[in-house]
This record gives sequence, C-alpha cells and structure tokens, in this order.
Amino acid sequence: MFGQIAAANALSDVYAMGGKPITVMNIVGFPISKLDKSILADILAGAADKVKESGATLVGGHSIDDQEPKFGLSVTGTIHPERIRANVGAKPGDKLILTKPIGVGILTTAIKKDLLEEKELKEVMTVMATLNKNAAEAMEGYAVSACTDVTGFGLLGHAREIADGSQTGITIYSKDVPLLSKTRDLANQNVIPGGTRKNHKWLADCIDYSNNISEIEQLILCDAVTSGGLLISVPALESVSLQQTLQNKQVPSVIIGEVTKENPGRITVL
Amino acid sequence: MFGQIAAANALSDVYAMGGKPITVMNIVGFPISKLDKSILADILAGAADKVKESGATLVGGHSIDDQEPKFGLSVTGTIHPERIRANVGAKPGDKLILTKPIGVGILTTAIKKDLLEEKELKEVMTVMATLNKNAAEAMEGYAVSACTDVTGFGLLGHAREIADGSQTGITIYSKDVPLLSKTRDLANQNVIPGGTRKNHKWLADCIDYSNNISEIEQLILCDAVTSGGLLISVPALESVSLQQTLQNKQVPSVIIGEVTKENPGRITVL
Repeated sequence: MFGQIAAANALSDVYAMGGKPITVMNIVGFPISKLDKSILADILAGAADKVKESGATLVGGHSIDDQEPKFGLSVTGTIHPERIRANVGAKPGDKLILTKPIGVGILTTAIKKDLLEEKELKEVMTVMATLNKNAAEAMEGYAVSACTDVTGFGLLGHAREIADGSQTGITIYSKDVPLLSKTRDLANQNVIPGGTRKNHKWLADCIDYSNNISEIEQLILCDAVTSGGLLISVPALESVSLQQTLQNKQVPSVIIGEVTKENPGRITVL
Repeated sequence: MFGQIAAANALSDVYAMGGKPITVMNIVGFPISKLDKSILADILAGAADKVKESGATLVGGHSIDDQEPKFGLSVTGTIHPERIRANVGAKPGDKLILTKPIGVGILTTAIKKDLLEEKELKEVMTVMATLNKNAAEAMEGYAVSACTDVTGFGLLGHAREIADGSQTGITIYSKDVPLLSKTRDLANQNVIPGGTRKNHKWLADCIDYSNNISEIEQLILCDAVTSGGLLISVPALESVSLQQTLQNKQVPSVIIGEVTKENPGRITVL
C-alpha cells in the first residue's frame, strides 16, 4: 500500500487548498540492482489507483537508480482564485474540525518494530491511504476561514501555523482529538519517532499545556503524521452543517478546538 | 551553472512538444550535513533564473536529506491539442534540423578529468543552459512533422526513435553534424562516457554506418547528451524558411539529415 499512501499524501496539498488535482508525475529513486522490480511495479500500481480515484491523470514521471527506494508524486491542480483555502485567515470564534485520527507516526514506528496486530496495521494504512478528496469537496460552499493538512509538523505544529499566520490563538480540546487504536499504549511504551520529539521540542515555546496534560499526551498531539486529515477552521454557525456534509461524504470529523482572539500565535491545550 | 542546466533540461520536454511551460516545482535531494547550504542556494538560484526566462512560475517543490545531491524540476505546461509535436510522424522527404551541437557527454566527462580550458568549459555549459524556448517558438506556424529533444540516447538514439515510430528511414549526414569544440580530440583520447558506449552498443542493430565512418565517429554520434537541442523533422519546402526563423530568434540550426521511405526504422549514416 506504499504507493497508495504516497499518492494520497502528495495529492493532499491540493485538497487542503480546496483545489482539484489535474496532472500527476511519478518521481522515483530505486536501487534497481538491489531490489526486485516487482516492488517498484507494486508501488507504481498503488499510486496509479489513487491517482485514478482522484480523477487526475498520471502523465509520466522520472526515475533514477538510487541507493534506497524513494517515491513521491508531483501534482498540478486548478483552483478558483476566489476559493483558495490557505493556512491563514482563521477568525476568533471559528471551530476547528479534524477529519482523520492522529497517531500515524507512533503507529508506523510500531510497524517497524513489529508491534502491531494485523487489524491495527490495516487501520493505520487505510487512514493514510484515504484521499482528502471528499473532505475537500465537502468544504465547497462553506465559508471556511483556513485549512491545512496535518503532516510532518503534527497536529499542534500545523495548528500553530494557522494561529501564527492568522494572528489568533487556538485552543485544543485534547480529550476530543481522535487517536488511532493503540496510540496511547504505544506512546506509553516509548514508541515515539524522532520527528515527533523534535516537533514537541520546537513547539514548546508557543504552546501552553494544562497541568493535567502529561508529557506523553503532549507528544501524541505533536506526533509527526504522514498523509493526515484536513484541519479546517470554520465559523461556529457553519460547523454543524459542514460536519453533516462531511458525514454524508463518508468523512469522519470531530471538532477538536476553537480559534480565540486571545494569545495570538499561541496554542492552549486543555 | 548546474541549476540553470538542470532547469533547461527539465523544461526541454515541454518545448520539444511545442508547448508552453506554466508551473515548475523543484525536486531536491541534498546531503545537508555533508555539503554547504550555499551550494544548494546556488543551484536553486540558477534554476529560478531559467524558470523566469521561460516565463513559467516556480510554485514550490520538495526537498529531502540525501546521500548525494540530486536536483530536477517537475514542469507542467499547456499545448494546443492540434499543435502537439511528437517524436513520431516524420514523412519521407523531410529535412532534419538540429539546433544545438552535440558532444556534451564527452565534454562533461572531460570536465571531470580536468581536461578542458576555461573557454571550452564555458561553451559546453552555455550550450546546456540554453533553453529550447526560442527554437520551440520558431516552430510555430510550420508544418513540423516530428520533433524531439536530443538527450540521453544521443543523436542517433533519438533519431532512431523518430524512424521507428514514424516507420520511415533516416539518413544522417555525419559531416554536417555540429560538434562542440574539442569533441573529436577528446573522443580520440578515449574520453567517452559509459552511457555513450551503451548507446552505441544497443543502436548497432539498427544503424548502417558507411565504411568511412570510424568507430570514434560512430561513438560521437551516439554521445549521451544532457539538455541537447531540438531535432526537427520538417518538409523540405519549409526547411529554409524555418531555418531563417530560427536564425531570427538567435537559434543556430543545421540540416543534418533527411527522412526516407526506404529502410523503415533504420538509420543510415553517411
């Protein structure tokens, strides 16, 4: 499923902006003398599936012989200039909606350590391989103030970008943040990727954690994500209807926080 | 000038099709702990210069920490569906026009062996960094039958693609093929890259060399090129006017061969 996840991840930027992907190119590094070609074929087939699902056209790509396998996709899309969603523009009073659970970094680290059951493995892979297409389409017609996709900087890192760029504060209701199965168990067993610890460290200056938020909880909220969901800032009055529209399109969604006038550029975790 | 050359090379595909590049993304692998950041800054600045010259917009990119530096650009462009130039469709009687000298593989191998004077170094770098933009624009309005850019497969390799796809023969006038300074001297000193020898080998089955063409001459014609010129197949009646238009746009051009009905799929080198 690696190709599908890579494609979902690459396409996500366009969806987070409210755009429509049009053309996609494969960018491949592969150790052709060390690994079997069928691995590359599987990756490309998986990516092609997801590109097809997106409605975009796979128009080619470039490959090189490389020390280790690398795969990404270069995506070009279109967007109406008056309907671009940016990761700035959030307004005090907005609700923050998240469309995928977090914990991806912790779970994928657990995969490398062979700590997951088949069921949990499938759950995290499926979450990563899910396109943000339906979520992006659901946003159409709503006065979304800001949107981003949650990836390497983690939920709090990307929330912080919104807060900083919008010059607003953000409050996160930690108890409402959806987690992948076993995220907390694994974190308690210290299965935490380096990127997550880095996020936690560089975010320390701009986040106010309540006293009841343990360091493990903090790390979970900073967990580095691959192919995460959309984090949508939308006026409270529209949030209920947007959640209904998301549900109609089979996109799970949870209100995980709100935008505040106070503490611009800072995140408060309750 | 590496960034400029990489950009000219990446943009060339669009030009060879008669298209117009619109958006460009940088694709970067860089050993950030081993090489100075200023090297990457220089590469990106050079590429940005060329993208600007092309009229396209640099819209972002992706970078990863890597064992060795890698740089390329993902280019998206537009083209009128009735004016797509392909590397098939050449017609018997067409003249073949080439817009840059060859010998790039041999000269760049010589750079690595420190065998070039400053002047020769500058010549080959400048040729590689020259966009095929003006050449592509010059083609507009002419009944070009086929077009390709000369790159890794060498002049004969790309000519062979045209012959094979068009089910025509191609005759190359070897004496008229323009060479970079010192190409022949260096080839005689055995400064010949591996890719060129590979081209020569796999092309052997479909090329008929005249008896007077030495193996060194054969290798030069098969020399692997980076960011080469356009190879344009155009009806003889239009070739003079097209050459004039190319010249008006400061694009050097030489008729280096012709398309024949005989020997479909084969190249004859005189």
